[in-house]
Amino acid sequence: MKLTRNKAERYNQVRVTVRGTDLEVFERLPAVRLVSDGSSVVEAVVAREFFATIFLNGKELATLLCSPDKLDYLAAGFLFSEGLIKARDDIEEIAVDEKLGIIRVSAKSASREESRYGSPRLITSGCGGAASFYNTQDAALPKIESSLKVNANAIFAMVKAFQHYSPAYLATHGTHSAALCDAASILAFAEDVGRHNAIDKLFGKCLLEDIPMADRLVLTSGRISFEILQKVTRRGVPVIVSISAPMSLGIQMAEKLGITLVGSARGQSMYVFSHPERVVVTADQEYKV
Amino acid sequence: MKLTRNKAERYNQVRVTVRGTDLEVFERLPAVRLVSDGSSVVEAVVAREFFATIFLNGKELATLLCSPDKLDYLAAGFLFSEGLIKARDDIEEIAVDEKLGIIRVSAKSASREESRYGSPRLITSGCGGAASFYNTQDAALPKIESSLKVNANAIFAMVKAFQHYSPAYLATHGTHSAALCDAASILAFAEDVGRHNAIDKLFGKCLLEDIPMADRLVLTSGRISFEILQKVTRRGVPVIVSISAPMSLGIQMAEKLGITLVGSARGQSMYVFSHPERVVVTADQEYKV
Repeated sequence: MKLTRNKAERYNQVRVTVRGTDLEVFERLPAVRLVSDGSSVVEAVVAREFFATIFLNGKELATLLCSPDKLDYLAAGFLFSEGLIKARDDIEEIAVDEKLGIIRVSAKSASREESRYGSPRLITSGCGGAASFYNTQDAALPKIESSLKVNANAIFAMVKAFQHYSPAYLATHGTHSAALCDAASILAFAEDVGRHNAIDKLFGKCLLEDIPMADRLVLTSGRISFEILQKVTRRGVPVIVSISAPMSLGIQMAEKLGITLVGSARGQSMYVFSHPERVVVTADQEYKV
Repeated sequence: MKLTRNKAERYNQVRVTVRGTDLEVFERLPAVRLVSDGSSVVEAVVAREFFATIFLNGKELATLLCSPDKLDYLAAGFLFSEGLIKARDDIEEIAVDEKLGIIRVSAKSASREESRYGSPRLITSGCGGAASFYNTQDAALPKIESSLKVNANAIFAMVKAFQHYSPAYLATHGTHSAALCDAASILAFAEDVGRHNAIDKLFGKCLLEDIPMADRLVLTSGRISFEILQKVTRRGVPVIVSISAPMSLGIQMAEKLGITLVGSARGQSMYVFSHPERVVVTADQEYKV
């Protein structure tokens, strides 16, 4: 545990200060385990929920219910997903107080769109990306162009690695994960109690550390809904793969925006709902959907 | 399909009008199913996401990403969970346009607290209960008193029935379910793409149809988080059981508010995290947690 750590050298332009306690993302609690013919008192590991409030240029923006780690990534990804920043260079400084759950971000050119956050909002563990469509449905997102091809067997292998990547998930079954992959392996990983937050943490990390996301693949443990598709589109990701089932608006949007959406990818089976041309089994394969 | 149906006679005081299309909660979409050595084009069943906007006394309140059914229950449950109504009698009329996704509610005594909804909000499929804690953390919820006892084997049996209750879930794996039970069987059931919405639909149904919730048990497919516990507490439910893992603030709150929280209830195993005295295996059982 360090009281202050400065990551500025890693992030180049963005000065990041983190003060606090390095809270664990899970905690151990006593519970009675009941089975059909008896009981015992055990120590259960549960995912920790935490309130983190983002202040943008001194003004309270939103409170997220999240896992208590990587709050700098979370804030950066959230601001990007919400359209409040357009690039890493828009962020001047991020100061995190992990103990108090406060993230202060100084950013350029954020003022014009800040107005839609007239009153501070609470965004729950299930969310993280609210408000986007509702306020920007007229701002058309660009169609994604990418010649990325991924082999189906590579996806099966990456999904398997992904499912065993997070000790917190394996211990609690209460968190969501997200990963950035190239055509063969996992490059970056993030997790959170919220499926939207996990994506925002991953995207925030890539933003702050200049990890390119174009022509790459995002893996998620959560269902792919409308809002998840929005986040992916904003970052220009051409392929999204989920272990869970997708939802209808996510699929519609993926089809329209040129994104390959893969759902229910587990074991040796997956369903490609849109733009299947990027997922190959053999070289000359052509699907009609 | 009926263009207008009037449920007023069922709900007594509350006049409910539903106009629209009776949209299915799922849809069939083509997908490429890929397995390790080949592919086929199949018809997949996916959960439908839908935008529904609630107007309270003529003023736009919130837009929910939800499943497109039981929007009257959703609105009633949401208004109750958010503290905007205190009882069924506060609701004068609910008019639903299913096709347009518009729910107009006329309610008494909602004005005082309406102010926290200064600007309309979008509440995503992951949410439904946002803002509550953030704005009401000083308004202490009452501790729940109940002498309800439930046999562990009865819970195992109800969980099993619950998991097979919803054709939409079995078809899509993309929805959440919630049910009200007594000590032996399921009394009411609701489902939605959002775990918060499923609870709100269940609670809205119980509110509108005068189904008592005290001394009863709520089953949910979703993780029990802080906000789920809030909803349960407002309705005076003493026992909540989830198939999924719970989260830390949900457990803390359940312990404090006198609620029995059971997590990871599946097959022949469950974990009781708080107030285990209500879950019995034998008559003289006493747990220390």
